[in-house]
Amino acid sequence: MTIVKIVFHSGSGNTKALAEAVHKGSNQFADTELMEIKSNMITEGRFENKEFLNKLDKADAIIFGSPTYMGMVSGQMKCFLDATSERWMSQAWNSKLAAGFTTSLGLSGDKQSTLSYLVTFACQHGMIWISCDTPNSLFQGKSLEEATNRLSSNTGVMSQVNFGEEFKPTPGDLLTGEALGIRVAKLTKNFNK
Amino acid sequence: MTIVKIVFHSGSGNTKALAEAVHKGSNQFADTELMEIKSNMITEGRFENKEFLNKLDKADAIIFGSPTYMGMVSGQMKCFLDATSERWMSQAWNSKLAAGFTTSLGLSGDKQSTLSYLVTFACQHGMIWISCDTPNSLFQGKSLEEATNRLSSNTGVMSQVNFGEEFKPTPGDLLTGEALGIRVAKLTKNFNK
Amino acid sequence: MTIVKIVFHSGSGNTKALAEAVHKGSNQFADTELMEIKSNMITEGRFENKEFLNKLDKADAIIFGSPTYMGMVSGQMKCFLDATSERWMSQAWNSKLAAGFTTSLGLSGDKQSTLSYLVTFACQHGMIWISCDTPNSLFQGKSLEEATNRLSSNTGVMSQVNFGEEFKPTPGDLLTGEALGIRVAKLTKNFNK
Amino acid sequence: MTIVKIVFHSGSGNTKALAEAVHKGSNQFADTELMEIKSNMITEGRFENKEFLNKLDKADAIIFGSPTYMGMVSGQMKCFLDATSERWMSQAWNSKLAAGFTTSLGLSGDKQSTLSYLVTFACQHGMIWISCDTPNSLFQGKSLEEATNRLSSNTGVMSQVNFGEEFKPTPGDLLTGEALGIRVAKLTKNFNK
Repeated sequence: MTIVKIVFHSGSGNTKALAEAVHKGSNQFADTELMEIKSNMITEGRFENKEFLNKLDKADAIIFGSPTYMGMVSGQMKCFLDATSERWMSQAWNSKLAAGFTTSLGLSGDKQSTLSYLVTFACQHGMIWISCDTPNSLFQGKSLEEATNRLSSNTGVMSQVNFGEEFKPTPGDLLTGEALGIRVAKLTKNFNK
Repeated sequence: MTIVKIVFHSGSGNTKALAEAVHKGSNQFADTELMEIKSNMITEGRFENKEFLNKLDKADAIIFGSPTYMGMVSGQMKCFLDATSERWMSQAWNSKLAAGFTTSLGLSGDKQSTLSYLVTFACQHGMIWISCDTPNSLFQGKSLEEATNRLSSNTGVMSQVNFGEEFKPTPGDLLTGEALGIRVAKLTKNFNK
Repeated sequence: MTIVKIVFHSGSGNTKALAEAVHKGSNQFADTELMEIKSNMITEGRFENKEFLNKLDKADAIIFGSPTYMGMVSGQMKCFLDATSERWMSQAWNSKLAAGFTTSLGLSGDKQSTLSYLVTFACQHGMIWISCDTPNSLFQGKSLEEATNRLSSNTGVMSQVNFGEEFKPTPGDLLTGEALGIRVAKLTKNFNK
Repeated sequence: MTIVKIVFHSGSGNTKALAEAVHKGSNQFADTELMEIKSNMITEGRFENKEFLNKLDKADAIIFGSPTYMGMVSGQMKCFLDATSERWMSQAWNSKLAAGFTTSLGLSGDKQSTLSYLVTFACQHGMIWISCDTPNSLFQGKSLEEATNRLSSNTGVMSQVNFGEEFKPTPGDLLTGEALGIRVAKLTKNFNK
């Protein structure tokens, strides 16, 4: 069966909520696992969890998620990404499929910087990048709350979330995440058949 | 049969030489056509050649090539890319495969800016981006002339070419282009089977 | 007196409206000129207008504006940017100040790609890049219409404009453009005193 | 007196060697301090060293340096950059000058990704970015060892360093770093006079 891993870091819970939406989508068509990068896996700036990395080796596709902090993936996420360098050396992830998602406070807010970097990272691993193709339904008159892909992002899924504990990705952003999960699972299945 | 189109602009002939290397690779495994963007297809900053665009609609994969001028695809290339906006609206190229290559004078010289943008463009079309996975054989002791992927580029193929009429991509750069052609053709075939 | 040139391309008039707002700001503190790149200055993909380029040589600061088409400056803008390559060779614009702005349909919509590229371009010329420091006043409770820097962009000014003839940058986007004009003029004046 | 801080992370010592060259340049014209981000300042993915951050508040210019790991600033560097978010909120570093440098194994090797991100980061802080304007002297016939800016990078200084303990930035790369230090110190002095 097709195996999809969703590996993410979340600070306040917003990226986790989006990761769960991606999982909801992907899990309909592939054996999908949510894998959260936790701060206690990082010692002096180095991610150290062999089991975590070993699991990813078995994936057919890996979907990467991170908040955008100061215009880029979070420090915690970057520590994890750096820890894949042995896989990069051996090209162990060559031709796996990849995709990405991110959240931040601002409507645009340099989230593209995060997603473009995740592509650069995936390409270093020889991976194949799947875009987000969900239409922006603001253009069809949906509200800011309900619209899918309301930020018009195609490199990956972007969600904008307001300040404060009580906020979450909008229903439309979650639907966009779910659609990315479905797309990745289906394309990966087709690619590996 | 798998159809691959290589669409490129070339100012001095260097990008054309690299395009031909990509073609040499791709054509071994797919019906491949080299399609050159010519200046006379551009009127007042607009690319106008319907037949050219129609041909691309039939491709399973499109490989984009451009010189890097002033840190980005050439103006001529950009005029062509803008002319695909109707296809973007209808998502006519959704889930086609894509890849890219570029040339410039400098060893690094902002060529990554060009390749990263080509990814952004392809993602807007809902395409799937294939990385360049050829190892940098400088690390195995090859010379600057002979080494494949000597510039360590994975988003696409980079070639550095010196000033002057007599210069061309190095043998190693051409082999890297050929390898990208082979990779795209094989992956596309697999993807569409 | 401090000389600021605002050089821009506009397709539908939205970028022009934003350019005028930047001009309104800059002109309060510097001798400022709006310079529009017109399609008829471009022949077969090459921008050809020596007088236009000569004027820019006299600027202390140049502010670049373009719509974001297909994830990047417009083809027309790129043809203009390519035509500065002689200045690049001679580094004629070295240490001039620079800034940028862009418009597109989507809230995020790859406008950062355009602004990041304009930085890369300016750096090739040895220029110094001035960021957009206007606070996002959505965070202070302003409406989407009225808020300054509502998209949270700092590399330059972003404006999102809806489809259709009747639309324009929001009042808040125009204020953000005006603030960039003021900032560039004041900093340039200080820098050259 | 003009105060320049050079804040960097170094894994193997290569970025440190480049930082020292930048310091050598800057210190001729400004009170300059080298500030190294150490792994033991990072706890569970968070940089925690208030004194370190307080020192930066007093700078007129900050030059950021990092190795390029997996196509981006190192995880350790990113943890530090994230720790500046309080300064971002208060815009404490507004209109300070900034510049950057990076090292990696490959000649191009996605180092531009690192430098472009450092610009995005600096712009979030409302800083002003100083480009690297040192000419590529390969074009004047210098050797790969001796040439300044041999990689043709202008967003910041790039150095390519080979594998192994015994390697260091080339003499030409070090001269390029020194030139950036001189440029930043002189421009900052002029800017603040």
